[in-house]
Order: sequence, then structure tokens, then C-alpha cells
Amino acid sequence: MLNIDQLRTETLGCAHKIHLNNAGAALSSQPVIQAIQAYFDLENQIGGYEAMMEKSEEINGFYAALSRLLNCQSHNIAHATSATDAYSKALSSIPFQKDDVILTTDDDYVSNQIAFFVLQKRIGVKLVRAAKNKEGGVDINSVADLIKKHQPKLIAITHVPTNSGLIQDIESIGEMCRKNNILYLVDACQSAGQMPLDVKKIHCDFLTATFRKFLRGPRGVGFLYASDKVLRMGLEPIFPDLSAGIWTGKNEYELAQTAKRFEVWERNYSLILGARAAVEYALDLGLENIQKRVQFLANYTREGIGSIPDWRVLDKGKNLCGIVTAHRENCDLNHLKQAFVNQNINVSFASKTNAFIDMDEKGVDWTLRIAPHYYNLESEIDKAIKVM
Amino acid sequence: MLNIDQLRTETLGCAHKIHLNNAGAALSSQPVIQAIQAYFDLENQIGGYEAMMEKSEEINGFYAALSRLLNCQSHNIAHATSATDAYSKALSSIPFQKDDVILTTDDDYVSNQIAFFVLQKRIGVKLVRAAKNKEGGVDINSVADLIKKHQPKLIAITHVPTNSGLIQDIESIGEMCRKNNILYLVDACQSAGQMPLDVKKIHCDFLTATFRKFLRGPRGVGFLYASDKVLRMGLEPIFPDLSAGIWTGKNEYELAQTAKRFEVWERNYSLILGARAAVEYALDLGLENIQKRVQFLANYTREGIGSIPDWRVLDKGKNLCGIVTAHRENCDLNHLKQAFVNQNINVSFASKTNAFIDMDEKGVDWTLRIAPHYYNLESEIDKAIKVM
Repeated sequence: MLNIDQLRTETLGCAHKIHLNNAGAALSSQPVIQAIQAYFDLENQIGGYEAMMEKSEEINGFYAALSRLLNCQSHNIAHATSATDAYSKALSSIPFQKDDVILTTDDDYVSNQIAFFVLQKRIGVKLVRAAKNKEGGVDINSVADLIKKHQPKLIAITHVPTNSGLIQDIESIGEMCRKNNILYLVDACQSAGQMPLDVKKIHCDFLTATFRKFLRGPRGVGFLYASDKVLRMGLEPIFPDLSAGIWTGKNEYELAQTAKRFEVWERNYSLILGARAAVEYALDLGLENIQKRVQFLANYTREGIGSIPDWRVLDKGKNLCGIVTAHRENCDLNHLKQAFVNQNINVSFASKTNAFIDMDEKGVDWTLRIAPHYYNLESEIDKAIKVM
Repeated sequence: MLNIDQLRTETLGCAHKIHLNNAGAALSSQPVIQAIQAYFDLENQIGGYEAMMEKSEEINGFYAALSRLLNCQSHNIAHATSATDAYSKALSSIPFQKDDVILTTDDDYVSNQIAFFVLQKRIGVKLVRAAKNKEGGVDINSVADLIKKHQPKLIAITHVPTNSGLIQDIESIGEMCRKNNILYLVDACQSAGQMPLDVKKIHCDFLTATFRKFLRGPRGVGFLYASDKVLRMGLEPIFPDLSAGIWTGKNEYELAQTAKRFEVWERNYSLILGARAAVEYALDLGLENIQKRVQFLANYTREGIGSIPDWRVLDKGKNLCGIVTAHRENCDLNHLKQAFVNQNINVSFASKTNAFIDMDEKGVDWTLRIAPHYYNLESEIDKAIKVM
């Protein structure tokens, strides 16, 4: 059981706001804030490179913490500056040829979709989307059929879409990828920190995420998991730098053996130490405990919205998570936004360009997104419902 | 004239260290530290997205400040997470074909070189390096000959190499690029903040740099300048994200009209506001004043080293800047490094993998790099010389 009072005391922002925008960026805990602050102060006193050398052991703890979060080894982890950065690096490492197929879903993240369009345009890759099951998630049978039909080079699945409470069944798809020897890329941006993630069970080759959302870390930092298979295959990002490769001759370089080949040398170490503290904080609480509490609050929110006339909960899927989306016909959107601001409540709104296919199907051009974290209270959600 | 006493008072680190590692990462000024701190505190109180919206005007000042630094428009500037990130984005936007030629020098930055090797390997691009003149800089006549011979798709020049005091004549090369309609990419990582940069005079299409070096900004942030020609040509990075393109249809996106097409949506805004403050601080002091002081201190350092038996200054070039490199035969390197640490002096050392061709020619396998900034004192340099 989580001690919510204590967790709120350790969260500075809880005293200032009703923060229900955790799928955007969550509030950080004191250990995260302190880790960032301490390193920032040190850097300003002794210099950026000098602080990095003095704290190299603590910095390495970033990889160790993530390996515990994901059930892998430290050598499988690469730092990234965002989930999108990690995703781009992974995609850029796959030697796509004309007519290679990428199999994905209707609910994959907008930036990933745009990246696929560029691969279509530049290389002639084909983009195939699996059908949905009746609950609204990806249809596993459709994936199986499309694997047989197209033998995709890559299957790319967003675990939890940014714009709905859906949790995709990434483990079943992973099992198919393993059996058919297909590269498998999972975007865990909204699930990392919200629920347990085990790359051994997911059978993914790449997994990408950010720290600012349910992990409660700082903005501007993310990570990439790369499997041993990826490392053995010699996959490398399109532009490795001196951190990823060693200049060994006039026209030669040697690639790093570990996932560090996906890293850029320059980075901000305050953010890395904050990210490390965020992962350790989540591990201490237990991801199962976190998931249970977040799902409880999300269900509480859905029930509350269900009780208001005119509002419609949009989330679909057999398993739902901490992201609640809703819509109301004939709504003065600016008025609604201002009402939340007036009550010190942080929520977010998405427009159609954030999730084109999903919103098109649901027949809406905007959604309200309420995403509670474990530190939120039922009374806070009641206040949000009252505004609605 | 710069008021050195005041500038040192405004630099917290000056009280703790003799910091001569400014080509690595410089010490930040109080306005930079305060800008980062204030935004960080706000984020922790009200949330990451909410702080971003509240401070959107201040954040936009990042682009305005850089446009003044470079003599361009705000729409030509893109945020990047490092100079390498900016460089990769620029390179990835050029539609290279097999046998296209990249013309560069022996002194271009290691990460850039590795990126060229990957383009050789993946696409079959040819890499051609211009000869040096007798002073050690790139030979302009050689560049002219190689343009005629190869009609390069891209000319890529590092303005100031990381490992020598050299300043390349980027304006003369830019004039040739303009006349011959060749894309021109300038790596200004070590020159930005150290000397004036005017993209109208350089005639570059891309210019990349970081903030942590002579600009005295935070680590983990850089920028890309993209010319109007680049924007008109429709060049886009290999993986634009939702910040760079708008998802407008099931399989369609629209590219941003400005250099924002090179940006990733997620970023750390504390660092951006710190970077903005750093640029404004440099502009207030005047880049000519900064360059004069830095060159004075660098020459003072070279003279000092010249007076020590056994040590050799390695810098070559007609025009030298704030980076001083030196080598001594039969030196106990660990002993030397420890001696600097014992005296609270920050310098840096490079190994051959940092500048393979340059060090090969100079016949050394390591260099000591002393890089003063305007806030350093002659008495501090005297202490470093004494250690040597």
C-alpha cells in the first residue's frame, strides 16, 4: 500500500496545483529535485566536465536503475534526450530497403507516424496497419495474418497511446515477433513508470520512453533499450558520434559494443541524475502498487465523467490505464479551459493533429485528457468533475 | 573594455577553481544560473507543461537572441540538444545519392568525420579532404580546385577545430559555395561566443554550435541555423516529429515553414532559458571585446609555454584563437594531470581518437589543452605554466 499523504508531502507541486496532467508531464518528487539541484550547484562551482568526472559513479547508476526497471542489463540501455530521439535512433539503425514493410497500428504516436511517412517517401518502405478488435485494441489475429502476408521488417507498437486509456497487448505481439524473427520496436512513453515493464516478457528489440510523464523525472531526457540481438546484429544509428564510435584511422571508426552506440556524447547530467532518482523512487514504491493506484483513480474519473450529462468517455480497450479522455458536443472550449485554470486544475486538451486516425474514428476534433497519478486524491478528481 | 573584476564576481566558479577548460565547458554567469534556477523552481511548483505555457514569451526570446548573435531572422533558428544533434539533423536533411561528394578538411570534428564515414558506408557518398596551406589552415586554392574537379554536394568546415588554436577561413569558402551553388555546413561549436559570427558574411546554409563552451550556457543544449535557401528547398531532417510536421491525414503530414522543422517537440526549457541568458550576456559584452580578451590571454599562454624547456605549442594557422594545445616528450601524464588537480586548475587532455589526422601529422598521441575565457587572469595562467 502506498502512503499517499507522505508521497504528497514529498511532492512540492501538490501544494500549488491539482495536477491531472501526468500524461503530459508529472510533478517531480523531492529526491528528483534534490538530485538535479545538487549536481547543478556542483557544475556551477567546479565546471561541467569536472563535475561529470567527480560524479561518474552516480551517473552510471542511471543505467543500473533502468536495467532494474526493465529487467535487462545495463549494457542494453542508452541515454536519449527524449522518447522521440530514442525512437529516431532505433528506426535509423534498421537497414530498410525499398518495399520493406513496417507493420503498426492505428493508435501509434503521431511523431512515430510522421517518421514512417518519411521512410515511405525516402526509401519506399510500405506502411501496413493492423485491424482493431471489437474492444478497440489491436487485433492479434490481424497481426498474425499480416505477418504471414507481408513478412514485415519491423513491427512498431505504441504500448499506451497518448490519446486514450488503451493498453495494447504488446506481449502477445512480441511472442509472434520472436517466433518469426521480426524486429520489434515498442514505444513505452506513456506506460513507463505507470505499470511494470519486462523486456524479457515483451520480447522487444527496442523500447523507448521518456522520464517526464509517469516516471516523474525531468523534461529533456529519455532512454532507449536495445536487445542483445540488436547489438549482435551490429545495428547502429545513422549518425553515431564520438561516444558511439571510436575514430581509429583516417577513414575508420570502431562501433561501441554496448547500447552506448546509440548515444550522443554531449548531454546534461543534472537531468540524468534526476532521471535516475525518478526510476529508483518508482522502484521503491513498486510498479504494481503504482499501477493499482493509478488505475483506481482513472476508473474513479471515468465513473465521475459518466455521471455528467452530455460528456462522453472516449477510452476504448479491454485493459484501460491512467489516461482518461472525454468529449462533449457543443462545448465552448475556451470557456472550459479557463474554468480549469480558475480552479488551479492542470489538465490537457488534444487536437486532431495529435491522433488523427483515432479522433477521426471517434468523430471528435478535440479531447479533454485527465491523467491522474498515484499522488492525486479522489477529492481532487471530484473538483475536476465539478468544473466539467 | 571588459570589467574583469565584475565579470569574475558574476561567475560563481571563479571563487573555486582556476578554470582553463573553456573549450570543454565554461563556467556560467549568474544571469544564466538564475534563469535556469527560476524556471526549474516554477516547473516543480506548477508542472512542466504549465510552466512552458506561462513562460512562452521568454522561451521565444531564445530564437530572437540567437538571431542577433548570428545576424539572421528568428525563423532561421532551431533548438537542438547538442551541436552534434544539430549537425546530424542538417546532414540528414541533404538528399545524398551514391557518388555525391562531401568536401571537408583534415581538421573537422571527430563526430562529423564519423558521420561522413557512415554516409560513405550506407549511401556510397565520397569523402574528399582539401589540402592544407603552409600555415596549417585549409588551403583555399585546394578547395577551389576540388570544387571544379568534384562539384561537391556539400562543403563541411569546422570553424575552430577542438584540438588546435586554428581559425579556418570560412568566409572565403562561403563565397565559393555561394558562387557555385553548393550547400555549406559550418561547425561553429568552438567559435560561437568566442568571436563574432555573421551568417550573411559566412554565406553558410547550415551553422551548428553548442552553448556550454565559449557561450557559457548550460550543457545539453545547442542550435542549428538553417538558411532561407534550405527552407525554400524543402530540406527536412530524416525524422521530423510533431513539432516539425503536422499530421494532416491518414498518411500525410505538412512540414513546418521555419527552421522549427529541425526541432524535436520535447526539450528542457530551463536549459533553453539559460542558453538565452548566455547569448544575451555575450551580446551585452560585445563579441569583438570578448575575442580580443580571449586572444590576448591565449597568446599570453602560448608565450608562457614557449618559455618552458621540453614543451612544444602545437597550434598552427595564420589566425589563432583561444584554444592552446601543447605536448611534451617523455612526460608522465598521470603525474601531470594530478599536479593540475592539486593546484585546483581545470585543463583538459585529448587522445588521438579525438583528432586522428591532426595528431598523426603532429606526431603526438596526446595533447594538453588550455583554453582561457575572458574572465581568466594572467596570474591564473602563470599558475598553470608553473605546474607544467
